[in-house]
Amino acid sequence: MFKMISKVNEDLQKERSKCTFNTEELTNFLDGGAQNAERRRKLENKVLSVPGILDEVPEEYLSHKEKYENAIRKGTLLYRTLEAAQDPTQDEDDTVILHLRSTITTAVFRDYTPFGVHFSMFIPTLRNQGDEKQRAYWLERALKMEIIGTYAQTELGHGTFIRGLETTATYDPNTEEFVLHSPTLTSYKWWPGHLAHTANYCVVMAQLHTQGKNCGIQPFLVQIRDEETHMPLPGIKVGEIGAKLGFNTVNNGFIGFDHVRIPRERMLMKNAQVLKDGTFKASPNSKLAYGTMVYVRVLIVNNAAAILARAVTIAIRYAAIRRQSKPKPNEPEPQILDYVTQQHKLFIGIATSYAYTIFARWLWNVYTKTTKDMAAGRLDNLPELHAIACVMKALSSSESTALVEQCRLACGGHGFMLSSNFPQLYGIATATCTYEGENTVLLLQTARYLVKTWSQKEKGLPLSSSTAYLAERSLPEKWDSSLDGIIRAFQRVSFGKLSNSVSSMEQYVKSGMSAEDAWNKASVQLIAAAEAHGRAVLLSVYKSEMDQRVATLSAPLKTVLMQLVDLYFVYWTLRNMGDLLLFTQLSEEDVRKLQRRYEDLLEKIRPNAVGLVDSFDFRDEVLHSTLGAYDGRAYERLMEEAMKSPLNKEPVNVSFHKYLKPFMRGQL
Amino acid sequence: MFKMISKVNEDLQKERSKCTFNTEELTNFLDGGAQNAERRRKLENKVLSVPGILDEVPEEYLSHKEKYENAIRKGTLLYRTLEAAQDPTQDEDDTVILHLRSTITTAVFRDYTPFGVHFSMFIPTLRNQGDEKQRAYWLERALKMEIIGTYAQTELGHGTFIRGLETTATYDPNTEEFVLHSPTLTSYKWWPGHLAHTANYCVVMAQLHTQGKNCGIQPFLVQIRDEETHMPLPGIKVGEIGAKLGFNTVNNGFIGFDHVRIPRERMLMKNAQVLKDGTFKASPNSKLAYGTMVYVRVLIVNNAAAILARAVTIAIRYAAIRRQSKPKPNEPEPQILDYVTQQHKLFIGIATSYAYTIFARWLWNVYTKTTKDMAAGRLDNLPELHAIACVMKALSSSESTALVEQCRLACGGHGFMLSSNFPQLYGIATATCTYEGENTVLLLQTARYLVKTWSQKEKGLPLSSSTAYLAERSLPEKWDSSLDGIIRAFQRVSFGKLSNSVSSMEQYVKSGMSAEDAWNKASVQLIAAAEAHGRAVLLSVYKSEMDQRVATLSAPLKTVLMQLVDLYFVYWTLRNMGDLLLFTQLSEEDVRKLQRRYEDLLEKIRPNAVGLVDSFDFRDEVLHSTLGAYDGRAYERLMEEAMKSPLNKEPVNVSFHKYLKPFMRGQL
Repeated sequence: MFKMISKVNEDLQKERSKCTFNTEELTNFLDGGAQNAERRRKLENKVLSVPGILDEVPEEYLSHKEKYENAIRKGTLLYRTLEAAQDPTQDEDDTVILHLRSTITTAVFRDYTPFGVHFSMFIPTLRNQGDEKQRAYWLERALKMEIIGTYAQTELGHGTFIRGLETTATYDPNTEEFVLHSPTLTSYKWWPGHLAHTANYCVVMAQLHTQGKNCGIQPFLVQIRDEETHMPLPGIKVGEIGAKLGFNTVNNGFIGFDHVRIPRERMLMKNAQVLKDGTFKASPNSKLAYGTMVYVRVLIVNNAAAILARAVTIAIRYAAIRRQSKPKPNEPEPQILDYVTQQHKLFIGIATSYAYTIFARWLWNVYTKTTKDMAAGRLDNLPELHAIACVMKALSSSESTALVEQCRLACGGHGFMLSSNFPQLYGIATATCTYEGENTVLLLQTARYLVKTWSQKEKGLPLSSSTAYLAERSLPEKWDSSLDGIIRAFQRVSFGKLSNSVSSMEQYVKSGMSAEDAWNKASVQLIAAAEAHGRAVLLSVYKSEMDQRVATLSAPLKTVLMQLVDLYFVYWTLRNMGDLLLFTQLSEEDVRKLQRRYEDLLEKIRPNAVGLVDSFDFRDEVLHSTLGAYDGRAYERLMEEAMKSPLNKEPVNVSFHKYLKPFMRGQL
Repeated sequence: MFKMISKVNEDLQKERSKCTFNTEELTNFLDGGAQNAERRRKLENKVLSVPGILDEVPEEYLSHKEKYENAIRKGTLLYRTLEAAQDPTQDEDDTVILHLRSTITTAVFRDYTPFGVHFSMFIPTLRNQGDEKQRAYWLERALKMEIIGTYAQTELGHGTFIRGLETTATYDPNTEEFVLHSPTLTSYKWWPGHLAHTANYCVVMAQLHTQGKNCGIQPFLVQIRDEETHMPLPGIKVGEIGAKLGFNTVNNGFIGFDHVRIPRERMLMKNAQVLKDGTFKASPNSKLAYGTMVYVRVLIVNNAAAILARAVTIAIRYAAIRRQSKPKPNEPEPQILDYVTQQHKLFIGIATSYAYTIFARWLWNVYTKTTKDMAAGRLDNLPELHAIACVMKALSSSESTALVEQCRLACGGHGFMLSSNFPQLYGIATATCTYEGENTVLLLQTARYLVKTWSQKEKGLPLSSSTAYLAERSLPEKWDSSLDGIIRAFQRVSFGKLSNSVSSMEQYVKSGMSAEDAWNKASVQLIAAAEAHGRAVLLSVYKSEMDQRVATLSAPLKTVLMQLVDLYFVYWTLRNMGDLLLFTQLSEEDVRKLQRRYEDLLEKIRPNAVGLVDSFDFRDEVLHSTLGAYDGRAYERLMEEAMKSPLNKEPVNVSFHKYLKPFMRGQL
């Protein structure tokens, strides 16, 4: 009925013109150099120009089955293109950064790739747990994608408690085979990605039984479908687990085994082995398995930051173009980004995304160093790394999930629409709170490490570097509002909470409880202690990494990045005010000053808000959002997207004639 | 491959046998008497026995279009049945309780009814804003559902700021018609439920222009589709807005008008009027419109409690049947309900649901009384009621949304499945944070009322009963851990936060800011002040209502209900510890004691957890959850539901032959 305007929204243009720093400089900082940024953009261009790789009908209008079929179609297109684009000359560090910054699959699949687990779990397991011969044959086939595999550990009845898994692999020395079996309904494998209709091979974690003994959980490579016909092999019951809050293109499946026989050589034998006669040889070091878990958790921290970056980009741009209300009668409606309540909701999202991005890189370096140490037989730092990875996976996933929702809610009703992409981002964000170690379970693991540390401290033994502060004679209680002062204060809180948890447990034990019951009864406090430790580590690393990394940046960029650090610190000080009041000498007057500092920081960051999110350099295809596109044409896009709904292809839906009309006439 | 067991899970049976109170007594308490419970159950039986009213293929497997068509089919079945079941002899109070306890539509539509807005908005608007003649004709037709209507206020560009709506209705005295027009893209109506393909009439809120003057927003009844053919009428562009996080069976639509003419008699003229010659007669009292808004917000508070009740029923039952880990080597895996961290996540959900259920009934009574006063011309209590309804809508919606998610996350991976029903419950819960007044906007409205109250207090003027505590000379700062002491402490916090906000604003004004800018800059504090007031009101009402209501109950039930009150109070005391440390003399020692009291309360409530959720008396069809059914057969149901996925109807999906096989062979 009237023309759609196609230029960039004027308000957004103004925001960009008043940005005080060079966004390209910040993008390059994130990419680890201009050359990397260039390389990333080239790859994005290449993939997104493949015909048919982007959807014409938005995915949300398809049926569950159609979504799967469409994902497989696009998946094969994507991986052929990525394969062709590989650059063997690239050095390893750059590959890592490129990987950490890559969002290209999210442009193609709004929730998740249909072959992700093949790369993130199946291939690494073959690589790390297969012996030389197994690697030579199976890893090669997997890398070429002649076979598609997945990794099956979690069962219907057991996720957290791995020792409780029920699937059995019983060795039969007569035929030199393992017999895989699912003795109960709860022993069915449940959740593995691609398992339902895509994968034809699967690493199955099962209780090994040989020579009448249970030898614990071991990995077995099992063919589940015929390579020619794709029919499930005899004795295998496989299917999909059904629709989910997210990951509906991932084809998560279940599998049950009815005495399925596989050759002895299909147990992955790099670590533990079963000899022909059935003799079991245990793995030389059971801690080696920790490495992969830590690796995945490092990726999750990075991923949490990246999902949040997308959400906050959408929310900030929308807040810049949306105008609402009239606080001053003679002035136009302000951009909603000018409301301090809106800044309060969104700027912490920007700061948090930067904080975890920086933290993930630091953690990556620690992980790499620890892995090298492990290869050389030095395992001393592994427990500390594991404790940090646990708590930081939990903090980053829960924090980013909450902030993705905060971004959505800050966009009002329009954020509720799938075309905003917020609901889909939420689905993949919140899943990270549960998978790869449920957050509460992980926090309790870190707590266990801390309680152990506490008793080492009591005995005067040396502590790891991230917990060294727990041994300091007197952490200062006097309040100091500098960044370093705030770090010290959070360390003091962590100390106080851990101390209280330990003494609660001691009291419970004194009153006659078992150690396990005392642990359980104090576990709400223990979780809080783990979180406090994680917060202290995060603040300390974020600050020291930024101090180093901004050194080479231009003054304007340095200023704004340090404002974000300041915002993050003050936000958490105000939010954890209760703990700080309890354990430090923070006063009411200090709180008032901090509140004022917070309000001033929001004002300082305001002019650069759009620049800060533009610098993430997400293509419109990656953001996939009517509200967050670079040009800010949110209203036009909302209408354009709505018109793609199949319901809008006909003026009158068939249900009118079938049901509504007879109903309204009283004939039904 | 092995038999499904069909009896009730043993762990659940044990839980039920050790419950210390009579669950039927509690159900009757919730229903307002045994007779009401009976009546409700009868209606549920009647509706759920209608053939075809429940889905055979779960909704999540349908395409967007199929979901709509299926909803209309079921909707016509449901409303014919409800019509036939109406009991004109029932007294009004019972009808209200029955209404507040009704969940029957949620058994039929997993997210929302396709005719809900017709009843909740279209009919009330005709009733409250139509004149006698309009009511006689249009209200009658609407009640009989000869026509289906909706209510169109929000536009693409304006939601919160109603004065900013752009749709115009210009009176033409020559033809005695109004000309409805959408001058811009942003003026398109956007969001009304049923508008897209279901409704044929619509109340449109538009800027009235007559005799060259703008006379503000007025309601117009507009026919949008032909009653015979259902085709959109000339000049009307109508369609659906697209897929959403929830409400996908609601058919939310957009509409634009191109100089659409309607007769003068189609303006709803009970309050304001336009005479034949175009003369505008204003409404005698602009505050009258507040009534309906308050009414809807009362329903939202009740609804928040009801959604949470469903979520926590599912989570508690699942926690009773799920066993995991082995903290003690020689004992079986414990029920996860025995982990204190799990109790910490879930029991507050039970307590919160009871708190808001009780609060909603109190608020309903206040609303009814105020409405009677209004009819008699006494409007004095309206601003107070409005302020309470605003903050309580915000608190109840955000609290219940967060707790629904907490319940889901407490169920691990299985909670992520749509068959758990958590994701759908989340969709409808979180929507209440945005619709009918966005929460931040509502909190600022309450804050405005409080700031006004503060200045009345300063002038020594009398205050409303819910804010009277602000005028007390000296709220005690000494800590007192009794329930009444905690209420006083929260009042002290509210006082302190309001006082600080006001002085911040004064300082900003002194430093040269305009009053509007000072308000904006202090708005983060103002929102916190409004929340603190709401919390104080909630605690006070919850306690006093329970004191009265438990008087006639049996001792065992009384005990457990008061444990929930205690839990709710102690939980919030610990959670708001920072504010309490700042504004009262709460000490570290007090905090430690409260923590211990909290841990003991979890232990006391533990044996009755299942009984407390059983008492909500939700039928399995209402819960609609594989994890939460009464019999606790979660694993069997997960598998049974999975088998309903259309992808599981074929062993090999077509995409294997089309894409996967050629891909794996390198031919693609």
